[in-house]
Amino acid sequence: MSGPDADAPFGLTPGTVLPNGRGRTGVITTPHGEIATPAFIAVGTKATVKAVTPEAVAGLGAQAVLANAYHLYLQPGSDLIDAAGGLGRFMNWPGPTFTDSGGFQVMSLGVGFRKVLAMDAAGVADDDVIAEGKERLAHVDEDGVTFKSHLNGDLHRFTPEVSMRVQHEIGADIMFAFDELTTLKNTRGYQEESVERTHRWAARCLAAHRALTDERVGKPYQALFGVVQGAQYEDLRRKAASGLAALEVDGQRFDGFGIGGALEKENLGTIVGWVADELPFDKPRHLLGISEPDDLFAAIENGADTFDCVNPSRVARNSAVYTADGRYNLLTAANRRHLGPIEDDCDCYTCAHYSRAYLHHLFKAKEMLSATLATIHNERFTVRLVDHIRASIEQGRFDAFRAAFLGRFYARR
Amino acid sequence: MSGPDADAPFGLTPGTVLPNGRGRTGVITTPHGEIATPAFIAVGTKATVKAVTPEAVAGLGAQAVLANAYHLYLQPGSDLIDAAGGLGRFMNWPGPTFTDSGGFQVMSLGVGFRKVLAMDAAGVADDDVIAEGKERLAHVDEDGVTFKSHLNGDLHRFTPEVSMRVQHEIGADIMFAFDELTTLKNTRGYQEESVERTHRWAARCLAAHRALTDERVGKPYQALFGVVQGAQYEDLRRKAASGLAALEVDGQRFDGFGIGGALEKENLGTIVGWVADELPFDKPRHLLGISEPDDLFAAIENGADTFDCVNPSRVARNSAVYTADGRYNLLTAANRRHLGPIEDDCDCYTCAHYSRAYLHHLFKAKEMLSATLATIHNERFTVRLVDHIRASIEQGRFDAFRAAFLGRFYARR
Repeated sequence: MSGPDADAPFGLTPGTVLPNGRGRTGVITTPHGEIATPAFIAVGTKATVKAVTPEAVAGLGAQAVLANAYHLYLQPGSDLIDAAGGLGRFMNWPGPTFTDSGGFQVMSLGVGFRKVLAMDAAGVADDDVIAEGKERLAHVDEDGVTFKSHLNGDLHRFTPEVSMRVQHEIGADIMFAFDELTTLKNTRGYQEESVERTHRWAARCLAAHRALTDERVGKPYQALFGVVQGAQYEDLRRKAASGLAALEVDGQRFDGFGIGGALEKENLGTIVGWVADELPFDKPRHLLGISEPDDLFAAIENGADTFDCVNPSRVARNSAVYTADGRYNLLTAANRRHLGPIEDDCDCYTCAHYSRAYLHHLFKAKEMLSATLATIHNERFTVRLVDHIRASIEQGRFDAFRAAFLGRFYARR
Repeated sequence: MSGPDADAPFGLTPGTVLPNGRGRTGVITTPHGEIATPAFIAVGTKATVKAVTPEAVAGLGAQAVLANAYHLYLQPGSDLIDAAGGLGRFMNWPGPTFTDSGGFQVMSLGVGFRKVLAMDAAGVADDDVIAEGKERLAHVDEDGVTFKSHLNGDLHRFTPEVSMRVQHEIGADIMFAFDELTTLKNTRGYQEESVERTHRWAARCLAAHRALTDERVGKPYQALFGVVQGAQYEDLRRKAASGLAALEVDGQRFDGFGIGGALEKENLGTIVGWVADELPFDKPRHLLGISEPDDLFAAIENGADTFDCVNPSRVARNSAVYTADGRYNLLTAANRRHLGPIEDDCDCYTCAHYSRAYLHHLFKAKEMLSATLATIHNERFTVRLVDHIRASIEQGRFDAFRAAFLGRFYARR
């Protein structure tokens, strides 16, 4: 295989657009290949999609892999990945790669996310929630975040500049700006402050990115996405999105945008829509951390192009599998002697070659292959669903496909 | 792929013979394909080679897989595997398969093997060793063995007839007769009794095998190997081997032979030689449970054709890897930033695509892919070593190859 093209342009070529003017198909071009969108991106947090070889990841149709700057900074170190030729070379994944900035992880790890996030107490609405938590592992100030490693408790500091250097060393095709994570428990006042801080950090990220791009000549271009925060507030989300869209530092603008942070499932489509309305149409938008079917439809309808989530592989390791008829657990007695595949109509490697009875046995015996096979199925399920949504947009039958798919998937609710 | 040929003959076609008249190459024909011998057989105890897909097992050159009747009887049950079309179909391995009889496992599991084996106290030479052990989990009588499941403590009973039915249901191409396991700690008197009992059990296995073969018409023929015991005693080993070689019940003879039981490493070649001298030259011989390079050379020189051992994959899961220059551990600091492969001259998938630094990272991060990649390397190392030994016999340079290989492998001792 020939090496990546250092001069390859990065960008989105929009395709078919939904009648609402927001949802669309497209093609993202990166130095390591194209991504047909909408697309579900496989998560490889620590430079491995857990329990699955890169060939199997490609075989199940994943077009790109998303790793995490926080985890790889702590171990094995971004300088080592740089020395190894970058993330793709290091992990044997020749296709496009993303890295999350670490903004989420520096603040959420070591404390129970959704229960308590350790940040300025002034920003926390519900002190009872704080009381459930452990020792504070992260502290936010104007310059950045000081946090303790969840591995060994060592103290570290991430700033926009550190995150940019780490992500340049890791070398993914698409990086995210370093942002502050908030939760629905934070006060409106804190969310306002936080969005403004994230904007200031975004400007510092653009400056650092420009300087690093110039410094590291000859490397493939790495695209930088700004991350839109603002929780559940329409005005904050719109302001954050339009602000990042307009931001230019040293001639550098964001190549795309991430949509992150606190949101309730029922508002997901609405929030993506607010943001999409403020962002340039011809730049890609990545929604961080979703994979449930109804969320995927809502996000795509409102203009999100790519998604990632640990959920399909995490639940697979706990023997839960997705099918067109909903989710079930392979360890239930009903599957002990079931000689059919996980799902009759599935085209994945696991369904082609293995019975539920075999998978039940592997999970019961705690054999590692159980995680491998169930992960392949769940990742394929999610990738294929998004592929089918893409086709439905191209063929003008998005609404019909959504009604049919979600009606069947959630029929047992 | 077409199904197995129910009428395919089973047998060994000997090839080149060493000057000593014992060691040889050959081809074993089974209903699911041929095995060029000598050959290292991958262990798939619970119907999975731990952490590796069957395609990867084939890709690393393994010609056959050996599963275990005891484990599969307890879970998922041999009747289920029968209903699923047999072991190969159940686990998606289209090639030849073996099952060990469970004789070893019913007596060794739940108690520390080599420390104490729970059997008739009269047969145990060293009472201090017994004292180290836990509750007795197995009791041998003339008819069979009563044992407690290591999974849940349930009481079970294996007899020659039960083992044969279980192994017929599992459906491997090569099965082993149910034998009694002894240890070097047993008295000479107990070893004599045990060899005689194993011979009587062998006759019952042949009778049960004949009846099951006649009963289960239309299934591919399953070959049955008698297991030669006798510990370190030349007269007992020779008597056991010649007795099993001559044994015929209802017109049924053994299709091959296993060499099992207690032996010290330094006597391995000698014991295999005694046994080989007593066995028919044109039937295959499987030596149970070896994989260390010096043991493989000694066994092959003295007439063993196939081998199995959990060791290459077990140590791989503990980050230890084999190379032509001996074994080392990927977790040592020396490998933290080493960007070369495990072994420069290795042709395995892992060495082709991954650095020691990446593997060090995966092991440190406790990522499952670490076990997958290290197992592929160690299994490939062992399979390839035996392939090279086979070639050296064919090319008349066995002694020279052994001297060179072992000299280098053990140079650091």
